Amino acid sequence: MDWLEQVKWDSDGLVPVIAQEQGTKDVLMFAWMNREALAATAARGQAVYFSRSRKRLWHKGEESGHFQEVHEMRLDCDADVVLLTVTQHGHDPAIACHTGRHSCFFQRFDSLQWQTVEPVLKDPESIYR
Amino acid sequence: MDWLEQVKWDSDGLVPVIAQEQGTKDVLMFAWMNREALAATAARGQAVYFSRSRKRLWHKGEESGHFQEVHEMRLDCDADVVLLTVTQHGHDPAIACHTGRHSCFFQRFDSLQWQTVEPVLKDPESIYR
Repeated sequence: MDWLEQVKWDSDGLVPVIAQEQGTKDVLMFAWMNREALAATAARGQAVYFSRSRKRLWHKGEESGHFQEVHEMRLDCDADVVLLTVTQHGHDPAIACHTGRHSCFFQRFDSLQWQTVEPVLKDPESIYR
Repeated sequence: MDWLEQVKWDSDGLVPVIAQEQGTKDVLMFAWMNREALAATAARGQAVYFSRSRKRLWHKGEESGHFQEVHEMRLDCDADVVLLTVTQHGHDPAIACHTGRHSCFFQRFDSLQWQTVEPVLKDPESIYR
């Protein structure tokens, strides 16, 4: 059975994807892939997602230069979630978030509020020229 | 503005949730929450998900005893994904997966196949009595 067919695609033909940083094990971001994106990711060794807003393949880093080298791909018990182990390239320290932060998960729940607890490493306006 | 309203719930009123283990930083599982589940998680300090198959709140560990103590909750840049930092209780070594494995992400992509690379720590039949 083809490995792409073993993935349980949702009704939109998508699967949720978690990107975790090699070494630090920080969870950097969450996105979606369709069959074509997952096949492209496996073939290139770089993360290619499916942008639900733009309804097209999104080679992470295509605009920002912040591409993700993929070391490992894992599938969960229900075959409906993918976990990538990646090295986030393009900036040191690594920036995965479009806000210019290391990780997209920069808002921590504290005192009944979501509080921003991670710094902007680079002005997003200078990332997306 | 209420913190629950700041979350961008999808058309089904759900948000994807990643559970990451405190200490090891292993990604243990992926699930979903609705407003009630997220509010209950914050109130109890234990993970309460929404089961899409059973269409009801699912207090993780209610059957298995493998509950998750929640240390931190984070929200991503688009406010549509939640990341939990948890301690997985109920068994040593910790079991988060219903298959009796540490993590749900036990299938690694290798040689164009998803290959099981993590051991079963406890027979699932003895977990769900």
